[in-house]
Amino acid sequence: MNESISIKKGVDIQASLVLEKLKTALMGVERVVSSRSTLPILNNVLIKADKEGVEIEATDLEVGVKFFLGGKVEQEGIVTVPGKTLISLVNNLHGDTVTLTGKNNVLTVVCGETKASLNGMPADDYPVIPQVEGGKQVKIKIETLGEILAAVDFAASRDESRPILTGVYFLSRGGKVTLAATDSYRLAEVIADVNLGEEFDVVIPNRTLQEVRRIMGETGEVELKVGDNQVMFVFSNASLVSRIIEGEYPNYKQIIPQAHTLSAEFDIQELADALKTASIFSLEGSNSVKLNVRSEGEIEVSSESSQLGNFVAKIPAKVEGEASEITFNARYVLDGLNSFDTVKCRMELGGKTAPGLFRPADVEGRLYIVMPLRS
Amino acid sequence: MNESISIKKGVDIQASLVLEKLKTALMGVERVVSSRSTLPILNNVLIKADKEGVEIEATDLEVGVKFFLGGKVEQEGIVTVPGKTLISLVNNLHGDTVTLTGKNNVLTVVCGETKASLNGMPADDYPVIPQVEGGKQVKIKIETLGEILAAVDFAASRDESRPILTGVYFLSRGGKVTLAATDSYRLAEVIADVNLGEEFDVVIPNRTLQEVRRIMGETGEVELKVGDNQVMFVFSNASLVSRIIEGEYPNYKQIIPQAHTLSAEFDIQELADALKTASIFSLEGSNSVKLNVRSEGEIEVSSESSQLGNFVAKIPAKVEGEASEITFNARYVLDGLNSFDTVKCRMELGGKTAPGLFRPADVEGRLYIVMPLRS
Repeated sequence: MNESISIKKGVDIQASLVLEKLKTALMGVERVVSSRSTLPILNNVLIKADKEGVEIEATDLEVGVKFFLGGKVEQEGIVTVPGKTLISLVNNLHGDTVTLTGKNNVLTVVCGETKASLNGMPADDYPVIPQVEGGKQVKIKIETLGEILAAVDFAASRDESRPILTGVYFLSRGGKVTLAATDSYRLAEVIADVNLGEEFDVVIPNRTLQEVRRIMGETGEVELKVGDNQVMFVFSNASLVSRIIEGEYPNYKQIIPQAHTLSAEFDIQELADALKTASIFSLEGSNSVKLNVRSEGEIEVSSESSQLGNFVAKIPAKVEGEASEITFNARYVLDGLNSFDTVKCRMELGGKTAPGLFRPADVEGRLYIVMPLRS
Repeated sequence: MNESISIKKGVDIQASLVLEKLKTALMGVERVVSSRSTLPILNNVLIKADKEGVEIEATDLEVGVKFFLGGKVEQEGIVTVPGKTLISLVNNLHGDTVTLTGKNNVLTVVCGETKASLNGMPADDYPVIPQVEGGKQVKIKIETLGEILAAVDFAASRDESRPILTGVYFLSRGGKVTLAATDSYRLAEVIADVNLGEEFDVVIPNRTLQEVRRIMGETGEVELKVGDNQVMFVFSNASLVSRIIEGEYPNYKQIIPQAHTLSAEFDIQELADALKTASIFSLEGSNSVKLNVRSEGEIEVSSESSQLGNFVAKIPAKVEGEASEITFNARYVLDGLNSFDTVKCRMELGGKTAPGLFRPADVEGRLYIVMPLRS
């Protein structure tokens, strides 16, 4: 243990609460609490008991999560204990209620005939999770938020070298919400008729949004507070604060093709199956797959590896315009197809070197663009 | 490709067969076919078509598996192709029948509008999977074999430094079958009233038996042929040949305690939950957990880690004899408890340093022994 951390006495805690609520809260903070941070306190979760009940907090300095658990508080106090240990312990407990007692930075958890004591650390070293005061405040249905996030988040970059692309662009304007994400190889955009009542644009780290999706449940509303540097999601029993990604989101609209020379409509599952199989035979790791769209109404999907062999499959399509061939990274096309909820999909091409545009059939407001590979 | 391999021409092959049968066969050979053997031919599966239909073979020189697929053979022949590529391909196919065409060591697979060609290698370099001729031949119900294997196989060693312990001891004598496995820290034995009609004893690699369990299905019979160096399992549509582990199986009977000073009967799930939770607080990686069996009818399960904290849980038990405490590796006890199909379990102890003996309540012929740790 770090000798420089002062032991703060007299922050005892005693509270009892519903075990299932504690399990849910710990599941909610699980991915925020570190297991081996260089800052040992970040491996801990903070447990606070006051007049309003028990609260669990965890932060990795980028995302902070709080859960409000209610419960019966006998003595107000605060303690922090290693998160992974507490989570393993609580997940293994069975019963209705659990009692938490903190004394001298040791938390004792009692549930039925089971009793565990966890060595903790003083709470005064725990980073404060900021509140977002002021800024724009809007409410959005959780179901809607889930749908629009799922339509784009998979296309965000995982490469930290361009931080802005690791976020999702969130724009509220003119009674519509627009979300976009791109890693510069592909782009997803959704425009939804959702009037939030306030106008703003913000780039939220995709990692934050994945935590939001884990925590938010399936029904009800979430309150979104957009501050200058921080964004906050407030749920009925939890809240999440995250930094905003600074900088200007790229003007992605300019790469959306405005015209096409060919359109093809086909069954999503059929193209997905062909792409998956074709990528087995692509040059190692390249996922390079050729689409040959023929005027007679078929798409030939093919790939070749000098080492393994070659592959070709044909799927029927409703084709309009000039026949064309184009080479894509199959993985990128599949990501887009998998995000569509429809049976059919439309692909628009403007030649071998122009981006391919995919839209779910008969759905407004969705688009997905994939840059072609050189064949 | 290895230049020393001669290209054997004229071993063309043409056959059509049921796609689902090919999928099942490839699933059956999946873990035997290597993905990166230093002997490249071992990365391949062998496909043979003759009067009797199509056969798929794979071997890693220790275990060899053959599947008989039937089908319609237009031209007899033989080809080998990379197993992992063929498996990925076939798993992605949809349809009723598949056509296999081999020419100059290239296998073409056609299924509906999908066609793939896989680069192969000459079959004459493929290792011959031996037959077991002569020896003892017996039949056993698949359901019975599955039960007795599951009762012991988890206790076999994974440490190759004592090869004999990586096998399962299989004894047929006096109208009973006895199976045993041990890694020297714990031992599982099952004695079943199964009259195989022949007497023998053999040590079969546990890895082989895991493949047998994967392949054998759930009903019907399997024929077991025990030769001098090899053992063969014959199923309705497949066969598996494996080497036998040479050497004398240790005389494990001598470590089975003949007396005890304490017996306790308890609910398996209750002890399992307590052990799982206790091991969170054991010294890192040791899984060291103390059981304190009290005459008043309870088992106290406890553990302690100077770093993390400590844990104690109590479960009710029907206790007879002298109260005692003993320290076990919780993982080993859990493995045994998980292998029992009953609700209750009996534990017999003979002091702190004697092996602990576990039996499922009201079941004959099962026992599990765990060596204690020094507490």
